[in-house]
Amino acid sequence: MLLLSNEEIANMLTIDDCLDVLEQAYRYLGHGQAGNVPRADLLVEIEPGITYGLKTMSGAVPAFQVGAIRLNSDIVHWPTIAGNTRRVKIPAAPGARWVGLVLLFSTRTGEPLAIFPDGVVQRMRVGATAGLAAKHLARQDAKVVGLFGSGWQAGSHAMAMAAVRELELIKVYSPTEANRRRFAAEMTETLGIEVRAVDTPEEAAEADIIVCATNALDVVYRGAWLRPGVHVTCVRPHELEGDVYRRSDLVFINYREGKPKHYVIGDKREEEIPEIREGWNSPTLGGIDLENKPELAALVAGKVAGRRDDRQVTCFCNNIGLGFQFAAVGARVLEL
Amino acid sequence: MLLLSNEEIANMLTIDDCLDVLEQAYRYLGHGQAGNVPRADLLVEIEPGITYGLKTMSGAVPAFQVGAIRLNSDIVHWPTIAGNTRRVKIPAAPGARWVGLVLLFSTRTGEPLAIFPDGVVQRMRVGATAGLAAKHLARQDAKVVGLFGSGWQAGSHAMAMAAVRELELIKVYSPTEANRRRFAAEMTETLGIEVRAVDTPEEAAEADIIVCATNALDVVYRGAWLRPGVHVTCVRPHELEGDVYRRSDLVFINYREGKPKHYVIGDKREEEIPEIREGWNSPTLGGIDLENKPELAALVAGKVAGRRDDRQVTCFCNNIGLGFQFAAVGARVLEL
Repeated sequence: MLLLSNEEIANMLTIDDCLDVLEQAYRYLGHGQAGNVPRADLLVEIEPGITYGLKTMSGAVPAFQVGAIRLNSDIVHWPTIAGNTRRVKIPAAPGARWVGLVLLFSTRTGEPLAIFPDGVVQRMRVGATAGLAAKHLARQDAKVVGLFGSGWQAGSHAMAMAAVRELELIKVYSPTEANRRRFAAEMTETLGIEVRAVDTPEEAAEADIIVCATNALDVVYRGAWLRPGVHVTCVRPHELEGDVYRRSDLVFINYREGKPKHYVIGDKREEEIPEIREGWNSPTLGGIDLENKPELAALVAGKVAGRRDDRQVTCFCNNIGLGFQFAAVGARVLEL
Repeated sequence: MLLLSNEEIANMLTIDDCLDVLEQAYRYLGHGQAGNVPRADLLVEIEPGITYGLKTMSGAVPAFQVGAIRLNSDIVHWPTIAGNTRRVKIPAAPGARWVGLVLLFSTRTGEPLAIFPDGVVQRMRVGATAGLAAKHLARQDAKVVGLFGSGWQAGSHAMAMAAVRELELIKVYSPTEANRRRFAAEMTETLGIEVRAVDTPEEAAEADIIVCATNALDVVYRGAWLRPGVHVTCVRPHELEGDVYRRSDLVFINYREGKPKHYVIGDKREEEIPEIREGWNSPTLGGIDLENKPELAALVAGKVAGRRDDRQVTCFCNNIGLGFQFAAVGARVLEL
């Protein structure tokens, strides 16, 4: 059984690896040859406003002979930063660490194959999934990305978009100026294309591909900013105003069983816990029915058609993570 | 983070420890102060008649500051042994091993506290749960146990029953004579009371407490064998004929969300997979509605009354395992 660190994985796994292996895995999923146990969260408020969550998801890609369990053991609170309510994990474990692990198993023998922290793979598979959707949905000649967010997930999204289209410019907006400037400088060097910090969300919104990759609990990108031919992607449903979904010609989601199951210990009602209030329950979505949109797997497997012309507005809502993504990327890590 | 072996746990954890800590934990559960994410199974047929299953359950007892995930990565088939269809896990992992693990986490900091194979704790918590139910439901003067099964689970059940009542005799029946004789000899020595192998199920059925602890997919104990005042317990709902439930004055189950969620990869329909056919779907239950029976936690927490007199027939169906049992017993292991 392999024990791997985030550093070891970061040194060998590229965004191209992730895009390649996820494209295969989504094709299997679209044909019923891969599967998932959706995320389930056990939640308990341990202090006023602070929640402990024990979260699991699993999945398997039998063609790769790999099954995966991804687990998180999180202390979470919801501070207001730069005017936005954010979901923030507290690194309360010794060494100021978060706790997330991936375990890989052989679907042939059952044996454990590897265990590693989820950090790098978690980030790469989210970015690569958005990249895969953009590969299949964005205009072929898309050159400019408008990126909302300058954190950990924003970085992997920038890499993934640069891998699937010939980009000339990424405009990054986030509420804290120092953060967006640091991000722009770093990513310009990493990607070898211009990454420019912009001072208003409206500037970022003038782009061919819109990426929201934030931990905001509020709306990040508004329907009024939509332009013909744009492709829009997000990591949480409520980052996009309900109008964005309504006015898109095509909307794909990652998975239909998109609301994690919540099991709450103690006397709190579900609606009192921000962790549960967010997501598909957000009032800013205006009750839009995301659950009945087609899945990315159906698009990748060729069962549902993608963009028809350069005027259509397309949208991918990466509504929830899936265990089979960890099985797929984990299989590539094992190969490497 | 502690890494423990089955041997280390077996050397320190007693059935009395398990009974004590589970009684506390069930009381918390009955008052909404402990919780579970029920078992979910990802299944794929890897060869005709052979299934790979990746199974998870989790739970937490915040008062003990412990959360647990129990996982199994199983290769399973269903051979016919001594006329009974059995569910048999194939030890296909290197070293001819099964793969089951328990991970413990702190609900205060999120940190991983321990990881260990599930074998010993799995067995002890199932036996101790049946023991806890018998403590609250069996007649105070129960002296004779009729035990169906002579395997791994039968042993922990014998220990648990001997811990909660002053027993004089355990009669053990299982279809293979050599197995029941070996079991009787071993357990007589372990428990210091007479454990006698009997040659027919009817002989075992003449007892104050009936324990079914088998891996049979068929009926083990019949309604016609019920005697006034008996307490009956089982590890799988279909071990007891539907009539046993119907004719019992009191029936308790372990948990209402008692059907594991199944996620099947590939073209097999659910009803073609024996793993799914068993349990509450069994036709021998005659459609009895176990899901609406009260839970053991309600009994232990004093919310539902137990046995009223020495003539009543009581029944505990240990219908499904729960993650919080691993959190509770795991917390005791950490103390020890």
